[in-house]
Amino acid sequence: MKALLMMGCPELPVQTAVALYIANKLNREGFEVTSAGNKAAISLLLNSDPEKHYIKKVMDLDRCIGALAEKKMDFDLCFVFIHSDSGTTYLATVKSLSQAKTVAVIFGKDIEPLIKASEGSIIIAAKAVHNPTPLRAQIDGVKSWAALTK
Amino acid sequence: MKALLMMGCPELPVQTAVALYIANKLNREGFEVTSAGNKAAISLLLNSDPEKHYIKKVMDLDRCIGALAEKKMDFDLCFVFIHSDSGTTYLATVKSLSQAKTVAVIFGKDIEPLIKASEGSIIIAAKAVHNPTPLRAQIDGVKSWAALTK
Repeated sequence: MKALLMMGCPELPVQTAVALYIANKLNREGFEVTSAGNKAAISLLLNSDPEKHYIKKVMDLDRCIGALAEKKMDFDLCFVFIHSDSGTTYLATVKSLSQAKTVAVIFGKDIEPLIKASEGSIIIAAKAVHNPTPLRAQIDGVKSWAALTK
Repeated sequence: MKALLMMGCPELPVQTAVALYIANKLNREGFEVTSAGNKAAISLLLNSDPEKHYIKKVMDLDRCIGALAEKKMDFDLCFVFIHSDSGTTYLATVKSLSQAKTVAVIFGKDIEPLIKASEGSIIIAAKAVHNPTPLRAQIDGVKSWAALTK
């Protein structure tokens, strides 16, 4: 099973922490996890995990979208990190290009419109900017990510 | 050898990544590392490192300052994370309460006044908000943190 974590610009501190937390859960379930983001998002992940315990494979976000569009790769499960409209655009892009089941990971201050724009995906959402605890509670509520791909 | 990482409010995404990066370096040099911060800062650290590979011991920032003031604990090396005036206040507090050699880890957009206010400490400083790479370069420039405590 293959999973993709797709991250936009990391303005909000919770994004990197939640990505690492989800990556660990997916690794433990046997997923091969790829993290895609812009330079800053990838740099935050790699510096947060210098011994690569959680983050095994990273790739540039634009290159990732290109490879999905050209059908050079695909995933079973795709997590899109959303704290602004650009996040919901990435979600729509993935839905149009990939066979993956999509999970919208929604955070920030004003989450209601983002939840509405993510209909049709599995929703993990909490008001969270600096403290990832409410998002973590939602993530822990899912007992098996593998089960969702079936 | 004991080291303390002291973190204020995590508005800027680089703080957590850099703390994890430094903690790993210190662990590898044999330091016993304690991370002190407010709830959000600690939650970001713990969720970023769910298997506790890097972060072994955390404590509330106010409780930490209290314990330093009461001489219930002390450290050989203390890293204070500074991206605003409140960070330089924590640095001054640690200097007055602890025997530790202090390292000011300065980041954000406007670092010059923060560098000036941190005179007398070892300075690790870079303009960095979303991307920790310039700070990492400074950290990697220090070959041995243990050597600095002597």
